[in-house]
Amino acid sequence: MPILNKDMTLCISLSGRPSNIGTRFHNYLYDALGLNYIYKAFSTDDLPAAIAGVRGLGIRGCAVSMPFKEAVIPLVDTLDASAAAIESINTIVNTDGHLTAYNTDYLAIQRLVERHGVAPCSVVVRGSGGMAKAVVAALHGAGFHDGTVLARNVAAGQALAAQYGWQVTDDASTVSADLIVNVTPLGMAGGPEAGERSFSDAAIAAASVVWDVVALPSETPLIRAARAAGKPVITGAEVIAIQAEEQFVLYTGVRPSAELVAEASAFSLAQP
Amino acid sequence: MPILNKDMTLCISLSGRPSNIGTRFHNYLYDALGLNYIYKAFSTDDLPAAIAGVRGLGIRGCAVSMPFKEAVIPLVDTLDASAAAIESINTIVNTDGHLTAYNTDYLAIQRLVERHGVAPCSVVVRGSGGMAKAVVAALHGAGFHDGTVLARNVAAGQALAAQYGWQVTDDASTVSADLIVNVTPLGMAGGPEAGERSFSDAAIAAASVVWDVVALPSETPLIRAARAAGKPVITGAEVIAIQAEEQFVLYTGVRPSAELVAEASAFSLAQP
Repeated sequence: MPILNKDMTLCISLSGRPSNIGTRFHNYLYDALGLNYIYKAFSTDDLPAAIAGVRGLGIRGCAVSMPFKEAVIPLVDTLDASAAAIESINTIVNTDGHLTAYNTDYLAIQRLVERHGVAPCSVVVRGSGGMAKAVVAALHGAGFHDGTVLARNVAAGQALAAQYGWQVTDDASTVSADLIVNVTPLGMAGGPEAGERSFSDAAIAAASVVWDVVALPSETPLIRAARAAGKPVITGAEVIAIQAEEQFVLYTGVRPSAELVAEASAFSLAQP
Repeated sequence: MPILNKDMTLCISLSGRPSNIGTRFHNYLYDALGLNYIYKAFSTDDLPAAIAGVRGLGIRGCAVSMPFKEAVIPLVDTLDASAAAIESINTIVNTDGHLTAYNTDYLAIQRLVERHGVAPCSVVVRGSGGMAKAVVAALHGAGFHDGTVLARNVAAGQALAAQYGWQVTDDASTVSADLIVNVTPLGMAGGPEAGERSFSDAAIAAASVVWDVVALPSETPLIRAARAAGKPVITGAEVIAIQAEEQFVLYTGVRPSAELVAEASAFSLAQP
Protein backbone atom coordinates (compact mmCIF):
# COMPACT_ATOMS: atom_id res chain seq x y z
CA MET A 1 0.00 0.00 0.00
CA PRO A 2 1.32 3.46 -0.86
CA ILE A 3 1.78 5.66 2.16
CA LEU A 4 0.30 8.92 0.98
CA ASN A 5 1.09 11.92 3.09
CA LYS A 6 -0.05 15.47 3.64
CA ASP A 7 3.11 16.99 2.16
CA MET A 8 2.73 15.50 -1.32
CA THR A 9 2.73 18.12 -4.05
CA LEU A 10 -0.31 17.75 -6.29
CA CYS A 11 -0.22 18.23 -10.05
CA ILE A 12 -3.34 17.83 -12.15
CA SER A 13 -4.72 18.04 -15.65
CA LEU A 14 -7.90 19.70 -16.87
CA SER A 15 -9.60 18.49 -20.02
CA GLY A 16 -13.02 17.84 -21.42
CA ARG A 17 -12.41 14.11 -21.65
CA PRO A 18 -9.54 13.05 -19.40
CA SER A 19 -7.45 10.04 -20.40
CA ASN A 20 -5.26 8.02 -18.08
CA ILE A 21 -2.05 8.81 -19.94
CA GLY A 22 -0.86 11.83 -17.93
CA THR A 23 -1.83 10.30 -14.60
CA ARG A 24 0.17 7.18 -15.39
CA PHE A 25 3.14 9.00 -16.95
CA HIS A 26 3.73 11.45 -14.13
CA ASN A 27 3.04 9.08 -11.22
CA TYR A 28 5.40 6.52 -12.79
CA LEU A 29 8.20 9.08 -12.84
CA TYR A 30 7.43 10.38 -9.33
CA ASP A 31 7.73 6.85 -8.04
CA ALA A 32 10.87 6.03 -10.04
CA LEU A 33 12.58 9.24 -8.93
CA GLY A 34 11.36 9.18 -5.32
CA LEU A 35 9.58 12.54 -5.59
CA ASN A 36 6.87 13.30 -3.03
CA TYR A 37 4.38 14.25 -5.75
CA ILE A 38 1.03 12.96 -6.88
CA TYR A 39 -0.82 13.50 -10.18
CA LYS A 40 -4.45 13.13 -11.14
CA ALA A 41 -6.56 14.06 -14.17
CA PHE A 42 -9.69 16.16 -13.71
CA SER A 43 -12.44 17.57 -15.84
CA THR A 44 -14.49 20.64 -14.95
CA ASP A 45 -17.63 22.45 -15.96
CA ASP A 46 -16.39 25.66 -14.35
CA LEU A 47 -12.91 26.56 -15.56
CA PRO A 48 -12.51 29.78 -13.49
CA ALA A 49 -13.44 27.85 -10.32
CA ALA A 50 -11.00 25.08 -11.21
CA ILE A 51 -8.18 27.57 -11.72
CA ALA A 52 -9.16 29.31 -8.48
CA GLY A 53 -8.70 25.88 -6.91
CA VAL A 54 -5.22 25.56 -8.42
CA ARG A 55 -4.34 28.81 -6.62
CA GLY A 56 -6.35 28.19 -3.44
CA LEU A 57 -5.08 24.67 -2.89
CA GLY A 58 -1.51 25.36 -3.96
CA ILE A 59 -1.67 22.82 -6.81
CA ARG A 60 1.82 23.02 -8.35
CA GLY A 61 1.11 22.16 -11.97
CA CYS A 62 -1.89 21.91 -14.25
CA ALA A 63 -1.90 20.47 -17.75
CA VAL A 64 -4.60 21.98 -19.94
CA SER A 65 -6.22 20.16 -22.85
CA MET A 66 -9.20 20.61 -25.13
CA PRO A 67 -11.45 22.53 -24.84
CA PHE A 68 -9.71 24.81 -22.31
CA LYS A 69 -6.44 25.78 -24.02
CA GLU A 70 -7.59 29.24 -25.08
CA ALA A 71 -10.27 29.92 -22.46
CA VAL A 72 -7.68 29.61 -19.70
CA ILE A 73 -5.54 32.49 -21.04
CA PRO A 74 -7.25 35.30 -19.06
CA LEU A 75 -7.07 33.20 -15.87
CA VAL A 76 -3.26 33.03 -15.59
CA ASP A 77 -0.74 35.69 -14.59
CA THR A 78 2.10 35.33 -17.11
CA LEU A 79 2.33 33.80 -20.60
CA ASP A 80 5.64 32.23 -21.56
CA ALA A 81 6.70 32.92 -25.17
CA SER A 82 5.74 29.35 -26.13
CA ALA A 83 2.10 29.98 -25.18
CA ALA A 84 2.01 33.62 -26.28
CA ALA A 85 3.22 32.71 -29.80
CA ILE A 86 0.16 30.56 -30.49
CA GLU A 87 -2.29 31.94 -27.93
CA SER A 88 -2.76 28.46 -26.57
CA ILE A 89 -1.83 27.07 -23.15
CA ASN A 90 -1.24 23.43 -22.28
CA THR A 91 0.75 23.82 -19.06
CA ILE A 92 0.37 26.02 -15.98
CA VAL A 93 3.01 26.29 -13.29
CA ASN A 94 1.99 27.69 -9.90
CA THR A 95 4.83 29.34 -8.01
CA ASP A 96 3.54 30.66 -4.69
CA GLY A 97 0.21 31.61 -6.23
CA HIS A 98 1.66 33.14 -9.41
CA LEU A 99 0.51 31.19 -12.49
CA THR A 100 2.87 31.05 -15.48
CA ALA A 101 1.54 29.38 -18.62
CA TYR A 102 3.49 27.48 -21.29
CA ASN A 103 2.82 25.48 -24.40
CA THR A 104 4.99 22.39 -24.24
CA ASP A 105 3.81 21.20 -27.68
CA TYR A 106 5.64 24.23 -29.06
CA LEU A 107 8.65 23.47 -26.85
CA ALA A 108 8.61 19.80 -27.89
CA ILE A 109 8.66 20.65 -31.62
CA GLN A 110 11.73 22.84 -31.16
CA ARG A 111 13.43 20.25 -28.98
CA LEU A 112 12.86 17.49 -31.55
CA VAL A 113 14.22 19.60 -34.40
CA GLU A 114 17.35 20.06 -32.28
CA ARG A 115 17.58 16.46 -31.16
CA HIS A 116 17.25 15.08 -34.70
CA GLY A 117 19.69 17.69 -36.04
CA VAL A 118 17.25 19.07 -38.59
CA ALA A 119 18.70 22.40 -39.78
CA PRO A 120 16.34 25.01 -41.24
CA CYS A 121 15.24 23.84 -44.68
CA SER A 122 12.12 23.87 -46.83
CA VAL A 123 9.11 22.43 -45.02
CA VAL A 124 5.50 21.47 -45.71
CA VAL A 125 3.16 21.24 -42.74
CA ARG A 126 -0.13 19.50 -43.46
CA GLY A 127 -2.93 20.78 -41.23
CA SER A 128 -4.30 24.04 -39.86
CA GLY A 129 -5.77 23.15 -36.45
CA GLY A 130 -4.48 23.97 -32.99
CA MET A 131 -1.51 21.58 -33.08
CA ALA A 132 -0.60 22.74 -36.62
CA LYS A 133 -0.39 26.28 -35.29
CA ALA A 134 2.04 25.08 -32.61
CA VAL A 135 4.13 23.22 -35.20
CA VAL A 136 4.31 26.12 -37.68
CA ALA A 137 5.04 28.68 -34.95
CA ALA A 138 7.74 26.51 -33.38
CA LEU A 139 9.39 25.71 -36.72
CA HIS A 140 9.29 29.35 -37.71
CA GLY A 141 10.75 30.26 -34.35
CA ALA A 142 13.53 27.69 -34.97
CA GLY A 143 14.45 29.37 -38.26
CA PHE A 144 12.29 27.53 -40.81
CA HIS A 145 11.21 30.43 -43.02
CA ASP A 146 10.73 28.59 -46.34
CA GLY A 147 7.46 26.90 -45.40
CA THR A 148 4.18 25.83 -46.90
CA VAL A 149 0.91 25.09 -45.13
CA LEU A 150 -1.09 22.35 -46.85
CA ALA A 151 -4.70 22.61 -45.68
CA ARG A 152 -8.14 21.44 -46.69
CA ASN A 153 -9.55 24.38 -44.78
CA VAL A 154 -8.25 27.10 -47.10
CA ALA A 155 -9.22 30.03 -44.89
CA ALA A 156 -7.51 28.56 -41.82
CA GLY A 157 -4.49 27.56 -43.89
CA GLN A 158 -4.15 31.02 -45.38
CA ALA A 159 -4.45 32.70 -41.99
CA LEU A 160 -1.79 30.43 -40.48
CA ALA A 161 0.62 30.76 -43.43
CA ALA A 162 0.19 34.55 -43.58
CA GLN A 163 1.11 34.87 -39.90
CA TYR A 164 4.59 33.51 -40.60
CA GLY A 165 5.14 34.56 -44.25
CA TRP A 166 4.72 30.97 -45.45
CA GLN A 167 3.05 29.72 -48.65
CA VAL A 168 -0.30 27.96 -48.65
CA THR A 169 -1.83 25.26 -50.83
CA ASP A 170 -4.70 22.80 -50.74
CA ASP A 171 -3.21 20.46 -53.35
CA ALA A 172 -1.57 17.46 -51.68
CA SER A 173 -0.43 15.98 -54.98
CA THR A 174 2.16 18.63 -55.81
CA VAL A 175 3.81 19.54 -52.49
CA SER A 176 7.49 18.85 -52.00
CA ALA A 177 10.04 19.90 -49.35
CA ASP A 178 13.06 18.69 -47.37
CA LEU A 179 10.93 18.26 -44.26
CA ILE A 180 7.32 17.08 -44.44
CA VAL A 181 5.12 17.07 -41.35
CA ASN A 182 1.62 15.66 -40.89
CA VAL A 183 -0.52 17.41 -38.29
CA THR A 184 -3.94 16.12 -39.41
CA PRO A 185 -5.92 13.06 -38.27
CA LEU A 186 -4.97 11.26 -41.51
CA GLY A 187 -3.76 7.81 -40.48
CA MET A 188 -4.93 8.11 -36.88
CA ALA A 189 -6.12 4.85 -35.32
CA GLY A 190 -9.84 4.76 -34.68
CA GLY A 191 -10.50 7.84 -36.82
CA PRO A 192 -12.47 7.91 -40.06
CA GLU A 193 -9.25 8.33 -42.05
CA ALA A 194 -7.20 5.68 -40.26
CA GLY A 195 -6.15 4.02 -43.53
CA GLU A 196 -5.14 7.20 -45.33
CA ARG A 197 -1.63 8.45 -45.83
CA SER A 198 -0.99 12.17 -45.50
CA PHE A 199 1.81 12.53 -48.09
CA SER A 200 2.31 10.93 -51.53
CA ASP A 201 5.13 8.61 -52.57
CA ALA A 202 6.64 11.49 -54.51
CA ALA A 203 6.59 13.84 -51.50
CA ILE A 204 8.23 11.15 -49.38
CA ALA A 205 10.84 10.45 -52.02
CA ALA A 206 11.73 14.16 -52.24
CA ALA A 207 11.93 14.63 -48.45
CA SER A 208 15.02 14.33 -46.24
CA VAL A 209 13.01 13.89 -43.02
CA VAL A 210 9.42 12.67 -42.53
CA TRP A 211 7.53 13.64 -39.41
CA ASP A 212 4.08 12.47 -38.27
CA VAL A 213 2.55 14.11 -35.24
CA VAL A 214 -0.07 11.34 -35.06
CA ALA A 215 0.97 9.03 -32.20
CA LEU A 216 -1.50 6.16 -32.52
CA PRO A 217 -0.75 3.85 -34.16
CA SER A 218 2.97 4.20 -33.60
CA GLU A 219 3.47 3.12 -37.22
CA THR A 220 1.09 5.35 -39.17
CA PRO A 221 0.73 4.83 -42.94
CA LEU A 222 3.08 7.82 -43.40
CA ILE A 223 5.76 6.54 -41.03
CA ARG A 224 5.54 3.06 -42.57
CA ALA A 225 5.98 4.38 -46.08
CA ALA A 226 8.82 6.67 -45.00
CA ARG A 227 10.69 3.83 -43.30
CA ALA A 228 10.16 1.68 -46.41
CA ALA A 229 11.71 4.46 -48.46
CA GLY A 230 14.69 4.60 -46.09
CA LYS A 231 13.91 8.08 -44.76
CA PRO A 232 14.68 9.28 -41.24
CA VAL A 233 11.44 9.72 -39.31
CA ILE A 234 10.17 11.63 -36.28
CA THR A 235 7.10 10.08 -34.67
CA GLY A 236 4.08 11.34 -32.80
CA ALA A 237 5.11 9.24 -29.80
CA GLU A 238 8.26 11.38 -29.55
CA VAL A 239 6.19 14.57 -29.59
CA ILE A 240 3.91 13.33 -26.84
CA ALA A 241 6.74 12.02 -24.68
CA ILE A 242 8.82 15.19 -24.98
CA GLN A 243 5.95 17.57 -24.35
CA ALA A 244 5.10 15.53 -21.25
CA GLU A 245 8.76 15.49 -20.21
CA GLU A 246 8.86 19.28 -20.51
CA GLN A 247 5.78 19.52 -18.26
CA PHE A 248 7.43 17.19 -15.79
CA VAL A 249 10.57 19.35 -15.71
CA LEU A 250 8.52 22.54 -15.28
CA TYR A 251 6.60 21.05 -12.33
CA THR A 252 9.43 19.31 -10.50
CA GLY A 253 12.67 20.94 -11.64
CA VAL A 254 14.01 17.43 -12.31
CA ARG A 255 14.88 16.17 -15.82
CA PRO A 256 14.48 12.39 -16.03
CA SER A 257 16.80 10.37 -18.26
CA ALA A 258 15.63 9.59 -21.81
CA GLU A 259 15.46 5.93 -20.79
CA LEU A 260 13.14 6.67 -17.89
CA VAL A 261 10.93 8.91 -20.04
CA ALA A 262 10.62 6.08 -22.57
CA GLU A 263 9.67 3.66 -19.79
CA ALA A 264 7.09 6.07 -18.34
CA SER A 265 5.74 6.73 -21.80
CA ALA A 266 5.32 3.01 -22.54
CA PHE A 267 3.67 2.53 -19.13
CA SER A 268 1.32 5.46 -19.70
CA LEU A 269 0.16 4.13 -23.06
CA ALA A 270 -0.22 0.51 -21.89
CA GLN A 271 -3.67 1.14 -20.42
CA PRO A 272 -5.13 4.36 -21.77
CA MET B 1 3.83 0.93 -6.99
CA PRO B 2 0.27 2.19 -6.68
CA ILE B 3 -1.44 2.52 -10.02
CA LEU B 4 -3.19 5.82 -9.68
CA ASN B 5 -5.81 6.55 -12.28
CA LYS B 6 -7.83 9.43 -13.64
CA ASP B 7 -11.11 8.16 -12.21
CA MET B 8 -10.06 8.30 -8.56
CA THR B 9 -12.37 10.41 -6.44
CA LEU B 10 -10.45 13.01 -4.48
CA CYS B 11 -11.27 13.97 -0.90
CA ILE B 12 -9.24 16.61 0.93
CA SER B 13 -8.94 18.52 4.17
CA LEU B 14 -8.40 22.22 4.72
CA SER B 15 -6.76 23.44 7.87
CA GLY B 16 -4.30 26.02 9.07
CA ARG B 17 -1.79 23.39 10.10
CA PRO B 18 -2.47 20.07 8.39
CA SER B 19 -1.51 16.87 10.18
CA ASN B 20 -1.04 13.50 8.52
CA ILE B 21 -3.84 11.84 10.48
CA GLY B 22 -6.72 12.28 8.01
CA THR B 23 -4.57 11.46 5.00
CA ARG B 24 -3.46 8.21 6.61
CA PHE B 25 -6.88 7.28 8.05
CA HIS B 26 -8.86 7.70 4.83
CA ASN B 27 -6.27 6.25 2.44
CA TYR B 28 -5.88 3.23 4.71
CA LEU B 29 -9.61 2.55 4.49
CA TYR B 30 -9.79 3.21 0.73
CA ASP B 31 -7.09 0.63 0.23
CA ALA B 32 -8.58 -1.92 2.62
CA LEU B 33 -12.03 -1.59 1.05
CA GLY B 34 -10.84 -1.37 -2.57
CA LEU B 35 -12.39 2.05 -3.15
CA ASN B 36 -11.05 4.12 -6.05
CA TYR B 37 -10.55 7.17 -3.83
CA ILE B 38 -7.60 9.24 -2.78
CA TYR B 39 -7.22 11.68 0.14
CA LYS B 40 -4.80 14.49 0.81
CA ALA B 41 -4.54 17.30 3.37
CA PHE B 42 -4.20 20.90 2.20
CA SER B 43 -3.83 24.30 3.72
CA THR B 44 -4.85 27.53 2.01
CA ASP B 45 -4.42 31.25 2.33
CA ASP B 46 -7.52 31.86 0.22
CA LEU B 47 -10.51 29.93 1.56
CA PRO B 48 -13.05 31.09 -1.07
CA ALA B 49 -10.64 30.05 -3.86
CA ALA B 50 -10.06 26.69 -2.20
CA ILE B 51 -13.81 26.05 -1.95
CA ALA B 52 -14.23 27.19 -5.56
CA GLY B 53 -11.68 24.50 -6.34
CA VAL B 54 -13.73 21.90 -4.46
CA ARG B 55 -16.61 22.75 -6.79
CA GLY B 56 -14.58 23.32 -9.97
CA LEU B 57 -12.54 20.13 -9.66
CA GLY B 58 -15.39 17.97 -8.41
CA ILE B 59 -13.61 17.17 -5.14
CA ARG B 60 -16.07 14.87 -3.35
CA GLY B 61 -15.36 15.64 0.27
CA CYS B 62 -13.57 18.30 2.26
CA ALA B 63 -12.81 18.15 5.97
CA VAL B 64 -12.57 21.59 7.54
CA SER B 65 -10.47 22.35 10.61
CA MET B 66 -9.24 25.40 12.48
CA PRO B 67 -9.31 28.25 11.56
CA PHE B 68 -11.89 27.71 8.80
CA LYS B 69 -14.85 26.08 10.57
CA GLU B 70 -16.95 29.24 10.77
CA ALA B 71 -15.55 31.22 7.84
CA VAL B 72 -16.60 28.48 5.45
CA ILE B 73 -20.31 28.75 6.33
CA PRO B 74 -21.20 31.36 3.66
CA LEU B 75 -19.35 29.34 1.01
CA VAL B 76 -21.53 26.22 1.12
CA ASP B 77 -25.06 25.63 -0.20
CA THR B 78 -26.80 23.70 2.59
CA LEU B 79 -26.15 23.30 6.31
CA ASP B 80 -27.08 19.97 7.84
CA ALA B 81 -28.68 20.25 11.29
CA SER B 82 -25.42 19.07 12.89
CA ALA B 83 -23.57 22.12 11.52
CA ALA B 84 -26.44 24.56 11.81
CA ALA B 85 -26.93 23.77 15.52
CA ILE B 86 -23.45 25.01 16.39
CA GLU B 87 -22.69 27.25 13.42
CA SER B 88 -19.52 25.28 12.80
CA ILE B 89 -18.60 23.06 9.85
CA ASN B 90 -16.04 20.29 9.83
CA THR B 91 -17.21 18.33 6.78
CA ILE B 92 -18.36 19.31 3.29
CA VAL B 93 -19.90 16.85 0.86
CA ASN B 94 -19.99 17.81 -2.83
CA THR B 95 -22.82 16.19 -4.76
CA ASP B 96 -22.68 17.30 -8.39
CA GLY B 97 -21.54 20.77 -7.39
CA HIS B 98 -23.97 21.19 -4.48
CA LEU B 99 -22.09 21.55 -1.19
CA THR B 100 -23.76 20.23 1.96
CA ALA B 101 -21.99 20.90 5.25
CA TYR B 102 -22.01 18.79 8.40
CA ASN B 103 -20.41 18.73 11.79
CA THR B 104 -19.35 15.17 12.47
CA ASP B 105 -18.11 16.05 15.96
CA TYR B 106 -21.77 16.69 16.79
CA LEU B 107 -22.76 13.46 15.04
CA ALA B 108 -20.02 11.51 16.83
CA ILE B 109 -21.18 12.68 20.26
CA GLN B 110 -24.72 11.48 19.56
CA ARG B 111 -23.48 8.20 18.13
CA LEU B 112 -21.31 7.51 21.19
CA VAL B 113 -24.17 8.23 23.58
CA GLU B 114 -26.17 5.65 21.66
CA ARG B 115 -23.37 3.11 21.36
CA HIS B 116 -22.57 3.24 25.08
CA GLY B 117 -26.28 3.13 25.99
CA VAL B 118 -26.19 6.35 27.99
CA ALA B 119 -29.82 7.40 28.50
CA PRO B 120 -30.59 11.07 29.19
CA CYS B 121 -29.45 11.90 32.70
CA SER B 122 -27.85 14.77 34.55
CA VAL B 123 -24.63 15.92 32.91
CA VAL B 124 -21.75 18.32 33.54
CA VAL B 125 -19.74 19.46 30.54
CA ARG B 126 -16.44 21.13 31.39
CA GLY B 127 -15.41 23.67 28.74
CA SER B 128 -16.92 26.43 26.60
CA GLY B 129 -14.88 26.40 23.37
CA GLY B 130 -15.85 25.19 19.92
CA MET B 131 -15.84 21.49 20.75
CA ALA B 132 -17.75 22.14 24.00
CA LYS B 133 -20.47 23.81 21.92
CA ALA B 134 -20.70 20.67 19.76
CA VAL B 135 -20.88 18.44 22.84
CA VAL B 136 -23.56 20.49 24.63
CA ALA B 137 -25.66 20.90 21.48
CA ALA B 138 -25.42 17.21 20.61
CA LEU B 139 -26.25 16.08 24.14
CA HIS B 140 -29.16 18.50 24.31
CA GLY B 141 -30.33 17.23 20.93
CA ALA B 142 -30.13 13.68 22.31
CA GLY B 143 -32.44 14.57 25.20
CA PHE B 144 -30.02 15.66 27.93
CA HIS B 145 -31.90 18.64 29.37
CA ASP B 146 -30.58 18.55 32.94
CA GLY B 147 -27.16 19.94 32.17
CA THR B 148 -24.48 22.16 33.62
CA VAL B 149 -21.66 23.96 31.85
CA LEU B 150 -18.53 24.24 33.97
CA ALA B 151 -16.35 26.99 32.52
CA ARG B 152 -13.44 29.16 33.51
CA ASN B 153 -14.59 31.69 30.93
CA VAL B 154 -17.81 32.73 32.68
CA ALA B 155 -19.21 34.80 29.81
CA ALA B 156 -18.72 31.99 27.26
CA GLY B 157 -20.08 29.42 29.70
CA GLN B 158 -23.17 31.51 30.41
CA ALA B 159 -23.86 32.08 26.74
CA LEU B 160 -23.54 28.37 25.96
CA ALA B 161 -25.66 27.24 28.91
CA ALA B 162 -28.36 29.83 28.21
CA GLN B 163 -28.70 28.60 24.62
CA TYR B 164 -29.88 25.20 25.87
CA GLY B 165 -31.50 26.08 29.19
CA TRP B 166 -28.61 24.54 31.14
CA GLN B 167 -27.04 25.68 34.41
CA VAL B 168 -23.62 27.28 34.56
CA THR B 169 -20.86 27.29 37.16
CA ASP B 170 -17.18 28.09 37.43
CA ASP B 171 -16.62 26.02 40.57
CA ALA B 172 -15.10 22.66 39.71
CA SER B 173 -15.07 21.50 43.32
CA THR B 174 -18.84 21.21 43.75
CA VAL B 175 -20.12 19.80 40.44
CA SER B 176 -21.79 16.42 40.36
CA ALA B 177 -23.81 14.54 37.73
CA ASP B 178 -24.47 11.07 36.30
CA LEU B 179 -22.42 11.89 33.22
CA ILE B 180 -19.29 14.06 33.39
CA VAL B 181 -17.53 15.19 30.24
CA ASN B 182 -14.22 17.01 29.86
CA VAL B 183 -13.91 19.24 26.79
CA THR B 184 -10.96 21.37 27.92
CA PRO B 185 -7.21 20.91 27.34
CA LEU B 186 -6.82 19.72 30.96
CA GLY B 187 -4.75 16.52 30.80
CA MET B 188 -3.79 16.94 27.14
CA ALA B 189 -0.32 15.66 26.25
CA GLY B 190 2.12 18.42 25.39
CA GLY B 191 -0.14 21.13 26.77
CA PRO B 192 0.62 23.36 29.76
CA GLU B 193 -1.97 21.46 31.84
CA ALA B 194 -0.93 17.93 30.82
CA GLY B 195 -0.73 16.77 34.42
CA GLU B 196 -4.07 18.19 35.55
CA ARG B 197 -7.27 16.26 36.01
CA SER B 198 -10.52 17.89 34.89
CA PHE B 199 -12.85 16.40 37.56
CA SER B 200 -12.36 15.71 41.27
CA ASP B 201 -12.45 12.32 43.01
CA ALA B 202 -15.88 13.22 44.37
CA ALA B 203 -17.27 14.05 40.91
CA ILE B 204 -15.92 10.76 39.53
CA ALA B 205 -17.33 8.81 42.46
CA ALA B 206 -20.77 10.36 41.92
CA ALA B 207 -20.79 9.74 38.14
CA SER B 208 -22.14 6.72 36.27
CA VAL B 209 -20.13 7.42 33.11
CA VAL B 210 -16.91 9.44 32.67
CA TRP B 211 -16.07 10.91 29.28
CA ASP B 212 -12.90 12.70 28.20
CA VAL B 213 -12.84 14.30 24.75
CA VAL B 214 -9.05 14.69 25.00
CA ALA B 215 -7.51 11.97 22.80
CA LEU B 216 -3.83 12.26 23.55
CA PRO B 217 -2.69 10.63 25.72
CA SER B 218 -5.21 7.80 25.37
CA GLU B 219 -5.14 7.48 29.17
CA THR B 220 -5.66 11.03 30.41
CA PRO B 221 -5.53 11.72 34.15
CA LEU B 222 -9.36 11.74 34.13
CA ILE B 223 -9.69 8.41 32.28
CA ARG B 224 -7.05 6.83 34.50
CA ALA B 225 -8.83 7.94 37.68
CA ALA B 226 -12.21 6.83 36.35
CA ARG B 227 -10.92 3.37 35.45
CA ALA B 228 -9.32 3.11 38.89
CA ALA B 229 -12.74 3.93 40.40
CA GLY B 230 -14.35 1.21 38.26
CA LYS B 231 -16.40 3.64 36.16
CA PRO B 232 -17.35 3.06 32.51
CA VAL B 233 -15.43 5.51 30.32
CA ILE B 234 -15.75 7.05 26.87
CA THR B 235 -12.42 8.24 25.42
CA GLY B 236 -11.31 10.99 23.10
CA ALA B 237 -9.90 8.37 20.74
CA GLU B 238 -13.47 7.13 20.25
CA VAL B 239 -14.68 10.63 19.45
CA ILE B 240 -11.93 11.16 16.87
CA ALA B 241 -12.40 7.75 15.27
CA ILE B 242 -16.19 8.06 15.05
CA GLN B 243 -16.19 11.59 13.69
CA ALA B 244 -13.70 10.45 11.04
CA GLU B 245 -15.80 7.35 10.35
CA GLU B 246 -18.86 9.57 9.84
CA GLN B 247 -16.87 11.68 7.35
CA PHE B 248 -15.81 8.53 5.57
CA VAL B 249 -19.41 7.33 5.32
CA LEU B 250 -20.60 10.71 4.06
CA TYR B 251 -17.92 10.76 1.34
CA THR B 252 -18.11 7.15 0.18
CA GLY B 253 -21.50 5.80 1.24
CA VAL B 254 -19.66 2.82 2.74
CA ARG B 255 -19.59 2.10 6.48
CA PRO B 256 -16.42 0.23 7.45
CA SER B 257 -16.50 -2.33 10.27
CA ALA B 258 -15.58 -1.16 13.77
CA GLU B 259 -12.50 -3.39 13.53
CA LEU B 260 -11.32 -1.71 10.33
CA VAL B 261 -11.95 1.76 11.77
CA ALA B 262 -9.84 0.83 14.79
CA GLU B 263 -7.05 -0.40 12.49
CA ALA B 264 -7.18 2.73 10.35
CA SER B 265 -7.23 4.89 13.45
CA ALA B 266 -4.17 3.18 14.91
CA PHE B 267 -2.40 3.48 11.53
CA SER B 268 -3.29 7.16 11.27
CA LEU B 269 -1.89 7.95 14.71
CA ALA B 270 1.27 5.87 14.29
CA GLN B 271 3.10 8.64 12.40
CA PRO B 272 1.33 11.96 12.84
